[in-house]
Amino acid sequence: MSKNPANIAILGASGYTGAELVRLLSRHPDVRIAAVTADRKAGEDYGSVFPHLAGLGLPALVSIDQLKWDQYDLIFCGLPHGTTQEVIAAIPRNKKVVDLSADFRLRDLAAYEKWYGHAHRAPELQSEAVFGLTEFYRKEITRARLVACPGCYPTSALLPLVPLLSQKMIETGYIIVDSKSGVSGAGRALKEGSLFSEVSEAIHAYGVANHRHMSELDQELSLAAGAPVLASFTPHLVPMNRGILSTIYVQLAGGNTASDIHAALAGRYAAEPFVRVLPIGEVPATRHVRGTNFALIGVVADRRPGRAIIVSVIDNLVKGASGQGVQNMNLMLGLDETAGLMQEAIFP
Amino acid sequence: MSKNPANIAILGASGYTGAELVRLLSRHPDVRIAAVTADRKAGEDYGSVFPHLAGLGLPALVSIDQLKWDQYDLIFCGLPHGTTQEVIAAIPRNKKVVDLSADFRLRDLAAYEKWYGHAHRAPELQSEAVFGLTEFYRKEITRARLVACPGCYPTSALLPLVPLLSQKMIETGYIIVDSKSGVSGAGRALKEGSLFSEVSEAIHAYGVANHRHMSELDQELSLAAGAPVLASFTPHLVPMNRGILSTIYVQLAGGNTASDIHAALAGRYAAEPFVRVLPIGEVPATRHVRGTNFALIGVVADRRPGRAIIVSVIDNLVKGASGQGVQNMNLMLGLDETAGLMQEAIFP
Amino acid sequence: MSKNPANIAILGASGYTGAELVRLLSRHPDVRIAAVTADRKAGEDYGSVFPHLAGLGLPALVSIDQLKWDQYDLIFCGLPHGTTQEVIAAIPRNKKVVDLSADFRLRDLAAYEKWYGHAHRAPELQSEAVFGLTEFYRKEITRARLVACPGCYPTSALLPLVPLLSQKMIETGYIIVDSKSGVSGAGRALKEGSLFSEVSEAIHAYGVANHRHMSELDQELSLAAGAPVLASFTPHLVPMNRGILSTIYVQLAGGNTASDIHAALAGRYAAEPFVRVLPIGEVPATRHVRGTNFALIGVVADRRPGRAIIVSVIDNLVKGASGQGVQNMNLMLGLDETAGLMQEAIFP
Amino acid sequence: MSKNPANIAILGASGYTGAELVRLLSRHPDVRIAAVTADRKAGEDYGSVFPHLAGLGLPALVSIDQLKWDQYDLIFCGLPHGTTQEVIAAIPRNKKVVDLSADFRLRDLAAYEKWYGHAHRAPELQSEAVFGLTEFYRKEITRARLVACPGCYPTSALLPLVPLLSQKMIETGYIIVDSKSGVSGAGRALKEGSLFSEVSEAIHAYGVANHRHMSELDQELSLAAGAPVLASFTPHLVPMNRGILSTIYVQLAGGNTASDIHAALAGRYAAEPFVRVLPIGEVPATRHVRGTNFALIGVVADRRPGRAIIVSVIDNLVKGASGQGVQNMNLMLGLDETAGLMQEAIFP
Repeated sequence: MSKNPANIAILGASGYTGAELVRLLSRHPDVRIAAVTADRKAGEDYGSVFPHLAGLGLPALVSIDQLKWDQYDLIFCGLPHGTTQEVIAAIPRNKKVVDLSADFRLRDLAAYEKWYGHAHRAPELQSEAVFGLTEFYRKEITRARLVACPGCYPTSALLPLVPLLSQKMIETGYIIVDSKSGVSGAGRALKEGSLFSEVSEAIHAYGVANHRHMSELDQELSLAAGAPVLASFTPHLVPMNRGILSTIYVQLAGGNTASDIHAALAGRYAAEPFVRVLPIGEVPATRHVRGTNFALIGVVADRRPGRAIIVSVIDNLVKGASGQGVQNMNLMLGLDETAGLMQEAIFP
Repeated sequence: MSKNPANIAILGASGYTGAELVRLLSRHPDVRIAAVTADRKAGEDYGSVFPHLAGLGLPALVSIDQLKWDQYDLIFCGLPHGTTQEVIAAIPRNKKVVDLSADFRLRDLAAYEKWYGHAHRAPELQSEAVFGLTEFYRKEITRARLVACPGCYPTSALLPLVPLLSQKMIETGYIIVDSKSGVSGAGRALKEGSLFSEVSEAIHAYGVANHRHMSELDQELSLAAGAPVLASFTPHLVPMNRGILSTIYVQLAGGNTASDIHAALAGRYAAEPFVRVLPIGEVPATRHVRGTNFALIGVVADRRPGRAIIVSVIDNLVKGASGQGVQNMNLMLGLDETAGLMQEAIFP
Repeated sequence: MSKNPANIAILGASGYTGAELVRLLSRHPDVRIAAVTADRKAGEDYGSVFPHLAGLGLPALVSIDQLKWDQYDLIFCGLPHGTTQEVIAAIPRNKKVVDLSADFRLRDLAAYEKWYGHAHRAPELQSEAVFGLTEFYRKEITRARLVACPGCYPTSALLPLVPLLSQKMIETGYIIVDSKSGVSGAGRALKEGSLFSEVSEAIHAYGVANHRHMSELDQELSLAAGAPVLASFTPHLVPMNRGILSTIYVQLAGGNTASDIHAALAGRYAAEPFVRVLPIGEVPATRHVRGTNFALIGVVADRRPGRAIIVSVIDNLVKGASGQGVQNMNLMLGLDETAGLMQEAIFP
Repeated sequence: MSKNPANIAILGASGYTGAELVRLLSRHPDVRIAAVTADRKAGEDYGSVFPHLAGLGLPALVSIDQLKWDQYDLIFCGLPHGTTQEVIAAIPRNKKVVDLSADFRLRDLAAYEKWYGHAHRAPELQSEAVFGLTEFYRKEITRARLVACPGCYPTSALLPLVPLLSQKMIETGYIIVDSKSGVSGAGRALKEGSLFSEVSEAIHAYGVANHRHMSELDQELSLAAGAPVLASFTPHLVPMNRGILSTIYVQLAGGNTASDIHAALAGRYAAEPFVRVLPIGEVPATRHVRGTNFALIGVVADRRPGRAIIVSVIDNLVKGASGQGVQNMNLMLGLDETAGLMQEAIFP
């Protein structure tokens, strides 16, 4: 550990993304977990909430109003969507914040209101927040005060699609994103649909044609294309703890072939530490990224002429949430972007 | 049990589809399992191969050459793809056959050769075989000698797509079938990819743009449309034993809306005992059909104008294989089509 | 279906045991589901609570106070433990009742108070109730008004142990029952410990040395032995929907060998329709009984002299709850004991 | 990475324990993977065998006879049981070896022959090998040339039992070890019993009263007790990738209570980096150690007087195999014992 580690507070540390932050930060060479909060569990030992993290000697859970803001260099916010705006608005403006919720991802306040059903409660911060898809906003993140990490589904879809739309290599009107997620994406909240017996030995689609993550896809795909893009997006729940696999169907533009888009993606990501493009014709599996911050992308030529099929995988809790958060934190604190994140997948 | 049950032989009874035939037929009121074969396990007690079926008092396994063909009224063939042609060619022509393999599904011998890598070895039977998708070939199946049951993936996709193509309600060039299957579809053969530790807590796509079941889709979709149809099809392996869920993306034609295609499907299947169309906007889950011969279909309007998303589910071992086989057998033997098949799903 | 089916009401039909009752009774030849209750979901269609049972044409859910008791021949009670006493006390005394809760299983009111933390609220019924382990109380059940079906764990342990204790073939002081259960045993209630991500890819013990099912073991083992028996019992939660496997360690008494106790069990259960004793040295798996009312028992000689290991399996929702309930109902209504229950296991 | 990392060869790197060694060693600060072997896959890229490790830049797989022994400082041997003796006998005597197979675990050649069915083929090495349960043979391991890591089941049982037997706190004749393992313990070999559909949604016991790991228990428990100990041991297969949970039933000796043995274990392991004893009455779950080298132990007083129940958990691939191997390697190379091993569990 470095001599002067940065002090980190984690708000909402009793959920799965909070625990994943603790797992990643506890072995990070340059930071120190200085506070963990969970309002309803304030006063409890962290190891009683997550026994697998009992050996870390963390401070006990406190409520947010017990925090001393001046003691932290950076604050992670892993609170539920909709509850984050006031909390972040109350953090002193000289403190850096990485938010994992959806509250600050959308630049358009009208879009926020449409998808989330109420007016934004911290609109002045909304305009300041940087969208935390590291590979595309690295420069902005490095100097940002508030970074809003993208949702897990959008992360898996934007990584392959944004470069192709930026270069106008695919049609904007024929993008289909069929995503399959592990159950941890639903969090630790008590919902009938998250019970083992409801989910195990089964698969189903949900939020068909109306999942909120579409709003992030709309925003970033349209920005990349320089024109409105409306993708189809269907999420599915798969009986596994971790992982998202997105199967993406695209129509090629401008005479490009599947090989061309493969080459474009391979070139775009050649120097990226966390994104790997497989040889053309090969597709990745979620087990290849379990527990890691890597995203893997495969490209296959469809047998229908002029089409290609792209498969991307991430671990929803790491590159899809806490890992990408740490990646952004590293940039914001001037650390090596990969610090604390270079682990291989747990397989089997 | 009826006084004069039909005598049934099951070839290839040591695989999962064979065991599923035994499960269904053992409680069927009008038939009797007269012989079960498994060449490498000939002589073994059936209960030692499948202990969950030990209590049925079945005859011991024999090899195919030990069968006395004149003792059976109908023969199920559950042998691996490619090994079935000679076996069925050797069965006396006055015996009815229900084949679960892929060997007789394709009408076009050139297509067979292309997809399976060798010339068909019983071409004269190929032309005689009826495609066993019961809901569309009921009349032909009733008088058929040889019925070739469709693959599990095609069954899940053809049920919703054929009526829509027949009525020209969807475009032929923009059909995408994204399918997710349980592991039992790979059978009981020893393959690394079927090992628990390779599959559990994971999802992956396979056979992208070249899975053999495409040939059945091509054939039946084109027949329905009256024109060549080339769908995109991507199968995925999900960590569950049973079930297929196909998410199907279609472009509406002729000014039809999602409500129109929903109404068309609801009307088409209103009188079918094994196909249920859910209210518009609702989608089914594989757990709703676990262990049953039912297919459930849901239709949702996409937010992209002019598109719809269809979700269909079946149990791959029942409606996708052995259950549909029994449904066809019932027709071929003049029995009630639903005999032995009316069970509710096992949930959880 | 028979011409005059018995009319059945199911109280607490929105839980897993309720759904399992519906699954079993819906195809029962001699009964008819006349009412289903769920207080908080009164008014809802049953198919909206359990879509896999939507096709049965059941009546809508009502609250208990909407029931007309004189319209039912027998009432199933699948309410949570502790809430059942007043409800059953309010049912007219001329109505037969099969209770799946723990409320009426213990004959000793002091034991009830000790294990459940409050005085029994219907002590006069307690003395009337028959313990519903069919294989041992068949005669009493046949003429009972109120049958209290045993818990799933006790069922799996009592079937092998009671005959051995009755015949004094094993020592009373050295019985260890190590049980492993699927998650559906915890019901559909919202508990953190039942969430998929808490349970999947994991196993743990719970209620070590203080699980309430011990009280049923104490009662019935002591009755069988004619002397107080205190077994060790440790339940574990396994990432599967259904099934209980109990591994039971016993010390042989009176010079008996493992072969002797195997012979005793095989003899005791030879004529029982739902209990099968495997050949000595073979052990059963839960997959062999998935979805069925069967119990399988295996006996192996331990390498420690004078000891044996017994393995028993049941489906916790069928023989461990609703199936045994139907078996008891059949006796109480004078029907064939196996009616509606003869299905083979769903495997894989 | 250190300036002069030790060079490591991994024999049998295409199995799960081999992959786990690669995962752990690839981020180890003081070693370098210099060679990986897999006879049948010689010439293949390591990333084609294990895509999740493709990014490590490892050398291609070679056959054992292509190795240059003088280039390695330490050799891991992860070959199947029975095939290891000749291979290790052929390694130059000045090279250190950590063996993960069962071939060198037993000190008694007659016991080896009895349990493995053939005479030992390298008896002179057998006597030299040190049993690699680090917490008990640390001094011997530090100066050993050949360390034979214990099996996964024995590791989980010996950690709690050895201290109690050494101190004569429990009876030697009443030890029952009921173990539950994930499927990865069976390796990547093609066996019907390891297929997903055979194992998923199910549990079963196997090797009852005759599993080979008993021989390791016999040896080490007897050594600890100073007298022959014959424990009962029953392994079970659980539908999860990783993890072993052993539920251990003991009879207390010498007037000791459950609190006494808890205190003894807590004291014994207070300074051990990888063994944690929970507060009395609490029991651990396998999810708390997933992916880690930790062992957790819980002690509960049984309600039967004079007995206690101990629950221990490990990750079978880490503390039960490759992690313990690395722990031993660290000692043999004079490194910090915990180097490369301090990761928190992956949960969920």
